[in-house]
Amino acid sequence: MINARVQRFLEENSNRIQTPCVIFDLNVLKEKYADFKKNMPNIEVFYAVKCNPSPKIIETLRDLGSSFDVASIEEVELCLSLKVDPAKLSWGSTIKKPYLVKKAYEWGVRLFATDSIEDLHGIAENAPGSKVYCRILVNNKNALWPLSAKFGCSLSMAEHILVQAKELGLQPFGISFHVGSQQLDLEAWDRAITNAARVFYELKESYNIELEMLNLGGGYPSYGYLTDYQPIEDYYKVIHDSLNENFGDNHPSLFAEPGRFLVADAGTLITEVVLVSKKSHDTDLRWVYLDVGLYGGLAETLGESIKYNIITSKDSDEVDLGEVNIAGPTCDGMDIMYKDYKYNMPIDLQAGDMVYILSTGAYTTSYSSVNFNGFKPLKDYFIE
Amino acid sequence: MINARVQRFLEENSNRIQTPCVIFDLNVLKEKYADFKKNMPNIEVFYAVKCNPSPKIIETLRDLGSSFDVASIEEVELCLSLKVDPAKLSWGSTIKKPYLVKKAYEWGVRLFATDSIEDLHGIAENAPGSKVYCRILVNNKNALWPLSAKFGCSLSMAEHILVQAKELGLQPFGISFHVGSQQLDLEAWDRAITNAARVFYELKESYNIELEMLNLGGGYPSYGYLTDYQPIEDYYKVIHDSLNENFGDNHPSLFAEPGRFLVADAGTLITEVVLVSKKSHDTDLRWVYLDVGLYGGLAETLGESIKYNIITSKDSDEVDLGEVNIAGPTCDGMDIMYKDYKYNMPIDLQAGDMVYILSTGAYTTSYSSVNFNGFKPLKDYFIE
Repeated sequence: MINARVQRFLEENSNRIQTPCVIFDLNVLKEKYADFKKNMPNIEVFYAVKCNPSPKIIETLRDLGSSFDVASIEEVELCLSLKVDPAKLSWGSTIKKPYLVKKAYEWGVRLFATDSIEDLHGIAENAPGSKVYCRILVNNKNALWPLSAKFGCSLSMAEHILVQAKELGLQPFGISFHVGSQQLDLEAWDRAITNAARVFYELKESYNIELEMLNLGGGYPSYGYLTDYQPIEDYYKVIHDSLNENFGDNHPSLFAEPGRFLVADAGTLITEVVLVSKKSHDTDLRWVYLDVGLYGGLAETLGESIKYNIITSKDSDEVDLGEVNIAGPTCDGMDIMYKDYKYNMPIDLQAGDMVYILSTGAYTTSYSSVNFNGFKPLKDYFIE
Repeated sequence: MINARVQRFLEENSNRIQTPCVIFDLNVLKEKYADFKKNMPNIEVFYAVKCNPSPKIIETLRDLGSSFDVASIEEVELCLSLKVDPAKLSWGSTIKKPYLVKKAYEWGVRLFATDSIEDLHGIAENAPGSKVYCRILVNNKNALWPLSAKFGCSLSMAEHILVQAKELGLQPFGISFHVGSQQLDLEAWDRAITNAARVFYELKESYNIELEMLNLGGGYPSYGYLTDYQPIEDYYKVIHDSLNENFGDNHPSLFAEPGRFLVADAGTLITEVVLVSKKSHDTDLRWVYLDVGLYGGLAETLGESIKYNIITSKDSDEVDLGEVNIAGPTCDGMDIMYKDYKYNMPIDLQAGDMVYILSTGAYTTSYSSVNFNGFKPLKDYFIE
């Protein structure tokens, strides 16, 4: 079902809306933020800007009191241009050009992630006295969109980095991890917290360094995909139990970097059917080609990782359905969204019909290619 | 080795060039076009605009007499804005919104690909009397970037479509296929030509329809990747032998849609090392993070499909090398270019060093994401 506000927006703006586009309901964003704050108490929210960097979203979250996790100097600049206090920014990327660290420091950023001695030196030289937290490697299995391997370091390397941080005049502030995006295995947090706690312990015991902060990263789910999920309160329970077990009464201050959880379910992608056809006379399998695809914003359908909830303007209780493959509009043969997982769509679906792809507020508009095959980047509209 | 003209351009423009960018040598493009024309005689070249839609490239090829394969109304518009004669355009996508077919027709386009009855009706209604060619399904195995499954139809469907085309007042003009991009198995052309010839024969025998044109598609290789390739003259030999065998003395007129062959080797991607680090103390494996990655234009490294020739500013005969993983600058864990295939890079490589990725003129700038993680799309510069 399309949300009623999106439905009304579509009706009222049908003459100006061009497909493909994402209609983003800011009320849903506000509800999701409230849900997170309520069910994850005492955790400071750093919205992962990369997930959807639209100014309206950043402004809405700014007014709700959110902090922001940024991945580049451009994202720092974007937040500051929208009057976000630089003290609310955490530069969460461990890959940073030193002269851009300097620029961020000059603009007031004082909190940086790192996972290597080389990057640490860049921070020490260009952002003296700043707080640093070290990202540790954790296992990403069972995440729908894994982030492992590329980021984080071993526990002993993390200790070494945080000890060095102090020697270089930085503040060794804490540990971060990321269990993988849309992580459905809650035990992943327990394993990661247990590992992080070891670094807290070792630094205190061996170097008398007291870390203050544990950054739980992201990975909290959209509720709107065709996958089972557990509600955010279940995540809290696992996290809370693990904190009690590993830190006793002395919990560190907690950060989290939700992205998908906050914005995915607020977006509805509106796309038009360009063609419905069959490849031969002796098959019932139809190919449905939409005016959006892998290169137009649906990059997370790669490998059919994320299975969106897809509905059509012809859906009804009485309509006959048949299996389809779903592909995008480019001349690239990779631009197929679903071929192994079979969606069912109305038998009378045809060019010009509308298709609604739900929970597409995360990792869509910014993933879109700049002009592959000449197609323009995915547009967005906001319902205030 | 970087080409001397690119080297000189870099030296002369070092103060204005910002990485990442592609330096494109138009002389190489001209040489590649001449090579194709010489070794593939009597074949009309339709440059696949999607491969690199930069105006300089289109203008250069226009002046050399090339025709153009376009994938969208935006690409039609681009070519016409650059004074390409609409009679030189072939709309090669089989997925087209009918009202855009009409627009293209009004602008003078008279040649369209199709692979379904539904799309054919859209052409018949909106581009009456135009020439149509039908794309047949062929096997794409052994292509480095396969295009199978999504495009083309069965041989009997193709016959049906071309018979219908005539009944609908269109000109049934020919057959096309695409064996897959960077296709290294030359026999793929023989198999496809043999199949196409069957449709020519059947239409003549059963319906007295004489097709005129065979579109050999693309798939001709870049010579600059770390993969074996065969020179273009070897492709011609296989194609020519297959034509003789299947068509005897009565060859159809031939089209081809080279993209990668013409532009890949003319581009050199200039990128800066952002970080070189290790994940733990007990490994020699370094991670090299560049300021370009999977989302910044190197989409074809997905699955390590295309292995580019990569050199660094520290390369020399004496330098010690060690194994590296190579990744991009975003906070996305998928943004890893090479991890299974191991490149060797100088032991003393560090942040700020330059890396040159050769043969990156194809499928890079246009694939680039619009602003994922805040990073700007890949820039290009042209050497006239």
